Amino acid sequence: MLHKALREEVLEANLEIVRRGLVLYTFGNASGIDRESGQVVIKPSGVPFEKLRPEDMVVTTLEGAIVEGGLKPSSDLDTHLELYKAFAGVGGVVHTHSTYATAWAQAGHDIPCFGTTHADYFHGPVPVTDPLDHADISGDYERNVGHAIVRTFEGRKPLDRPGILVRNHGPFVWGPTVTKAAMTAVLLEEIARIAAITVGLNPEAGPVDRELLNRHFLRKHGSRASYGQG
Amino acid sequence: MLHKALREEVLEANLEIVRRGLVLYTFGNASGIDRESGQVVIKPSGVPFEKLRPEDMVVTTLEGAIVEGGLKPSSDLDTHLELYKAFAGVGGVVHTHSTYATAWAQAGHDIPCFGTTHADYFHGPVPVTDPLDHADISGDYERNVGHAIVRTFEGRKPLDRPGILVRNHGPFVWGPTVTKAAMTAVLLEEIARIAAITVGLNPEAGPVDRELLNRHFLRKHGSRASYGQG
Amino acid sequence: MLHKALREEVLEANLEIVRRGLVLYTFGNASGIDRESGQVVIKPSGVPFEKLRPEDMVVTTLEGAIVEGGLKPSSDLDTHLELYKAFAGVGGVVHTHSTYATAWAQAGHDIPCFGTTHADYFHGPVPVTDPLDHADISGDYERNVGHAIVRTFEGRKPLDRPGILVRNHGPFVWGPTVTKAAMTAVLLEEIARIAAITVGLNPEAGPVDRELLNRHFLRKHGSRASYGQG
Amino acid sequence: MLHKALREEVLEANLEIVRRGLVLYTFGNASGIDRESGQVVIKPSGVPFEKLRPEDMVVTTLEGAIVEGGLKPSSDLDTHLELYKAFAGVGGVVHTHSTYATAWAQAGHDIPCFGTTHADYFHGPVPVTDPLDHADISGDYERNVGHAIVRTFEGRKPLDRPGILVRNHGPFVWGPTVTKAAMTAVLLEEIARIAAITVGLNPEAGPVDRELLNRHFLRKHGSRASYGQG
Repeated sequence: MLHKALREEVLEANLEIVRRGLVLYTFGNASGIDRESGQVVIKPSGVPFEKLRPEDMVVTTLEGAIVEGGLKPSSDLDTHLELYKAFAGVGGVVHTHSTYATAWAQAGHDIPCFGTTHADYFHGPVPVTDPLDHADISGDYERNVGHAIVRTFEGRKPLDRPGILVRNHGPFVWGPTVTKAAMTAVLLEEIARIAAITVGLNPEAGPVDRELLNRHFLRKHGSRASYGQG
Repeated sequence: MLHKALREEVLEANLEIVRRGLVLYTFGNASGIDRESGQVVIKPSGVPFEKLRPEDMVVTTLEGAIVEGGLKPSSDLDTHLELYKAFAGVGGVVHTHSTYATAWAQAGHDIPCFGTTHADYFHGPVPVTDPLDHADISGDYERNVGHAIVRTFEGRKPLDRPGILVRNHGPFVWGPTVTKAAMTAVLLEEIARIAAITVGLNPEAGPVDRELLNRHFLRKHGSRASYGQG
Repeated sequence: MLHKALREEVLEANLEIVRRGLVLYTFGNASGIDRESGQVVIKPSGVPFEKLRPEDMVVTTLEGAIVEGGLKPSSDLDTHLELYKAFAGVGGVVHTHSTYATAWAQAGHDIPCFGTTHADYFHGPVPVTDPLDHADISGDYERNVGHAIVRTFEGRKPLDRPGILVRNHGPFVWGPTVTKAAMTAVLLEEIARIAAITVGLNPEAGPVDRELLNRHFLRKHGSRASYGQG
Repeated sequence: MLHKALREEVLEANLEIVRRGLVLYTFGNASGIDRESGQVVIKPSGVPFEKLRPEDMVVTTLEGAIVEGGLKPSSDLDTHLELYKAFAGVGGVVHTHSTYATAWAQAGHDIPCFGTTHADYFHGPVPVTDPLDHADISGDYERNVGHAIVRTFEGRKPLDRPGILVRNHGPFVWGPTVTKAAMTAVLLEEIARIAAITVGLNPEAGPVDRELLNRHFLRKHGSRASYGQG
């Protein structure tokens, strides 16, 4: 069996998003990539989470060809693949329809960086994608969702803001590993929730001071080199 | 004992809506129909969910005559029966007072289709019924609630939008089986919750693009034949 | 030991409001009355709920004299006693600071009867008391809270609307038994929650039609005699 | 091993804030002080709560020098130390990013004292700090957060309002012991939640009458000496 350790990590990330209440029934998926072989390990489609075993994970190429696995890969596979192709440092991708993040995606608003909880993980607002046009929807839809995400990050470092809201859909989150991506998906939901309550309390609430944003993000993330990016 | 498998499925659906937090005390009921015999299996009235056994389910005709069972059927039986009579493909009905769906019913607003979570299960807004008039309320009330639901679906395919909000009351949900109806009741509550948060974040939020609605609904539901219906 | 069965029922009601999430730490209390002896059984003050045993309950007269029990009765005892003295048919009283009911009490608004969930248990809005004046606060405070509740119900049947919001404080709920009062406290919190979401969705939402209110309340409660009362 | 009992109490307080849902992953920290030796016991940084043992706690001086312990102390240590230095009667400090308290901190508003739930624990509004200036952020940041808290309490008794919202960050709470501080952190989150719902129901809701505030706070807290303070 290929990628035994990665299969287990991908499975565990899928279970973590369920345990944390981000996923109703089978509404979510996590994947990881082995950069050496260029192969992706992803949750199969439609299998109840409580029945998933490492051997049920599906292994595909970056083009989506199945390398190993008897089940259908998650229907969002093509979106995951576009992210792996475009974002070099990304090792894992997580998609959910978590309540508050999805509400922001439906509202069509970026999540402003209102405080340090947010600034610890995202170096600025969590962006929302532009709407897909009709050709994108009727064409290779899941792949085009990936393109819309990648376009939003043009000129930005994807790991400085490791997530996005796909408009009228829900969040996609990534990280250096799928374990970190799952954790960030959980944090994004909490950030989205606190931000929604903040806006309810004070519609004029402003974003955190840039100095404080940098202080917190850089306390947790890397070198001076990334300072002011993103 | 009649309809052993259906009794078990109906019981399990009743327990599922409790486990998922849709039901406080005895505020909910699920039923299933055996189309061959035209007999309906429904939860008894007022029995605590944790004590329900398959043999407690009540079997009635489509006119509400008890065929088997020593307990009183759910007081909403007549509403269930009207739905089975009017909606040919429906195999199960679920009624709850789940928090957010009930709030939309009290607000008197359809739930707009704000995103793909909604579009995966309902092919358009979740409608709210018109108010009942005094004659309907003082007359055969539960049956008239059923008529109000059926009127709202005139000219529509009921399985394209498998649920409704009874105004100032709460949701009724249906499906090809009672298992699917219970799952849709859970999803409707989540859809109602995300939509309420969406409206709080952006009172001007618009519905999902029709192309995206179709793409998602039809990805999960059936043939081109239903395209653009409902 | 006096009132063994009532002690157990009172204990169980105290545990029910904790299990249902209405009580943080020791913020709530339930009592029952034995109308024959005129004695009240109430939770002791400040004892963690998980340690309560039937023998810890305190027995008092209607004037608050301790008849049996080595612990201090709940500090809200005097409010409970005023309700027993004024409301003849009441057998149990429950007080909590449950989240949504307390928010309505702090907002200073009655909870409108927006739907049938509410109408099944309260025959009209859940009222909020007038503010206490300074003499009432600095005097026999807990007793005066009871008087404020009783004044609000002048000319009404207390069991037609078995609860109230004490302004800037929280809900008091009653019933023919303490078991029913605890259940009504749970339902009141849910009604308060649905109503808060309703108002958020539609600030102009109107109350349920009077005919529908009567239909639902009277379906569950008693004879034609109470029709239109309360 | 130094401070065995205090280590256990500090550990238990850290676990309590997790059990009560105030902490996601490792986002919170509790400490206690031994006033005799002037030594502080605090949670280590970044260790998952479920793995914490008493011996993992870190012992430091009031200046932050490590006295005992092989792990790094919580990154918020310096803020805790400033509070111990400035607030003589304080024996424990707790910091969380709990949802509603953090939303108020992000909204930049004091939490008004809307009712008795609040008045039982805080003798007036829960204040929010002024924003830190750039020199404070780029300098000794965690220590300067402590200074901002202390400045807000100039001329006030810290135990009369045992907590604060650090603007765009989250709550810090204290008490005579770390056990009480953890309980107050839980209560603050509930107070913040009820207050947010109150404001949603009635944007014009006013604070509790001063007489009622005093009555409730002083019922629980100490002597006439503190009457009217804070």
